[in-house]
Amino acid sequence: MKARITITLRKGILDPQGQAIAHALQGLGFAGVQDARQGKVIELTLADGTNAAEAKTQLEKMCQQLLANPVMEDYSVEMVA
Amino acid sequence: MKARITITLRKGILDPQGQAIAHALQGLGFAGVQDARQGKVIELTLADGTNAAEAKTQLEKMCQQLLANPVMEDYSVEMVA
Repeated sequence: MKARITITLRKGILDPQGQAIAHALQGLGFAGVQDARQGKVIELTLADGTNAAEAKTQLEKMCQQLLANPVMEDYSVEMVA
Repeated sequence: MKARITITLRKGILDPQGQAIAHALQGLGFAGVQDARQGKVIELTLADGTNAAEAKTQLEKMCQQLLANPVMEDYSVEMVA
């Protein structure tokens, strides 16, 4: 079973890396780009036969304990297959 | 309009950061984690009124020209809203 965790900076937290991307894209002629925010994605392979609901609880715990910084970051968890 | 670009290392390319995450999670007691791969996610805000099909073509071009390294990375593009 695969799961995907997406971690992004909270709204309101300055994202210089995202700003650099937006500026670079505008400089390349992509004028429609108004803003960019960069985050992380972590794809986990979980042992087969894991209960999906239980896995989701575990994934939330992983985010809280290790993967995300809850002060500055938001995270979302989704099962892929 | 918002778009999300996900960039991950190609299969077969060593991902030490992902391995470190997997080991750390196993060390914390999440024994079901078999593997982890880390990638980047970029959320773009595009000018309103952009044609979705055209935007997708533009996003592919952004990935090829700037955002992804096509030798080592895979990318996927999705429109969010």
